[in-house]
Amino acid sequence: MHARPQVVIFDVNETLTDMEPLRARFEDVGLSGEQLPAWFASVLRDGFALTVAGGFAEFGRIGADVLKGLRLPDKAVDHVLGGLAGLRVHPDVPDGMRRLREAGIRLFTMTNGSAATTEGILRREGLLDLVEATLDVSGPRAWKPARAAYAYAVGWAGVLPAEAALVAVHPWDVDGAQRAGLSGAWVDRRGVPYPETMSAPHVSAPDLRALAALWA
Amino acid sequence: MHARPQVVIFDVNETLTDMEPLRARFEDVGLSGEQLPAWFASVLRDGFALTVAGGFAEFGRIGADVLKGLRLPDKAVDHVLGGLAGLRVHPDVPDGMRRLREAGIRLFTMTNGSAATTEGILRREGLLDLVEATLDVSGPRAWKPARAAYAYAVGWAGVLPAEAALVAVHPWDVDGAQRAGLSGAWVDRRGVPYPETMSAPHVSAPDLRALAALWA
Repeated sequence: MHARPQVVIFDVNETLTDMEPLRARFEDVGLSGEQLPAWFASVLRDGFALTVAGGFAEFGRIGADVLKGLRLPDKAVDHVLGGLAGLRVHPDVPDGMRRLREAGIRLFTMTNGSAATTEGILRREGLLDLVEATLDVSGPRAWKPARAAYAYAVGWAGVLPAEAALVAVHPWDVDGAQRAGLSGAWVDRRGVPYPETMSAPHVSAPDLRALAALWA
Repeated sequence: MHARPQVVIFDVNETLTDMEPLRARFEDVGLSGEQLPAWFASVLRDGFALTVAGGFAEFGRIGADVLKGLRLPDKAVDHVLGGLAGLRVHPDVPDGMRRLREAGIRLFTMTNGSAATTEGILRREGLLDLVEATLDVSGPRAWKPARAAYAYAVGWAGVLPAEAALVAVHPWDVDGAQRAGLSGAWVDRRGVPYPETMSAPHVSAPDLRALAALWA
């Protein structure tokens, strides 16, 4: 098993938060709830594309662009995106975060989304005191999985990449963190295969409680 | 209007080919046809992610990984991906390509997919003689919109970036080409808004016939 990290950096969207309630927002504005996965994949696609090409835009602006591409008017776009701030964390998250913190591991969040949104969610859930900082890609102006995004978070924590672990449900995030020299921990709540085209996770667990049990 | 290019580089998936027939392949294996857009966006997301992070994998392998993530068995994965080789071009493509070629513009294709698949499709459609080369990202081992991918295609044609135009339905491809110094031409068959987060296209047209009329 990979060495216990000094610092754990959590991805936020889907890793800490459950995005499924956004389906209802899609339906509210006349889209199908089934369009949520395509929207989220498209937002990441476009954020990564800008990063690949040397540009940058914030999650909310790209999220709006993709919705406008579905011919949604501005008010409907705002309604869908307004759902992001109201998301809850997955049931395993509070216990998992508390156990890691009690074990003396320093906790951070680093999201392609918004640090302010993350902070609001963690505060409402009573989890904000567990993390030292809520970070986002507006600092490095490069989306994960760019090396610069992980380097920014690790630099903020003041540790070497090898002393930190990135925790995510998304294989592209685990793969990118590992290529940047961090440990990668894949949280796989649904029990699906890990992509063969990406570097295998150093650690994997079905949820944050199980992950904490490995490290605490 | 932007200067007439000496060389036109066509994107392939959705720009030349109509991917809608893949919906039936999704349904054949028990998925919903509505999952096609999410699949395609996810394949691009993961291909871009690997490029951002310094890795590389071919479209077919990532396409298979995303389908396996939907719990499809190997045989079903092969059935879906087998549909790519049988795609047809959009109705406006033959005329548009011929008019550009008759106007003395040199034509190339450059795809995040497979050059061999592109070649098979263009041959079947009687269009292969119009292009000098069918290129793909296995050459530069970097997916569009990485600068290296456009530089590879431009280098193959032996022209300066500013002498070439990239033609695509995908704004991220137009944006990336423009950032790499090429002209960008956005083909917008559906009449949707162009993303505000990406550099505005130098040229846009509702289909390849209309684009050819601008340049021929």
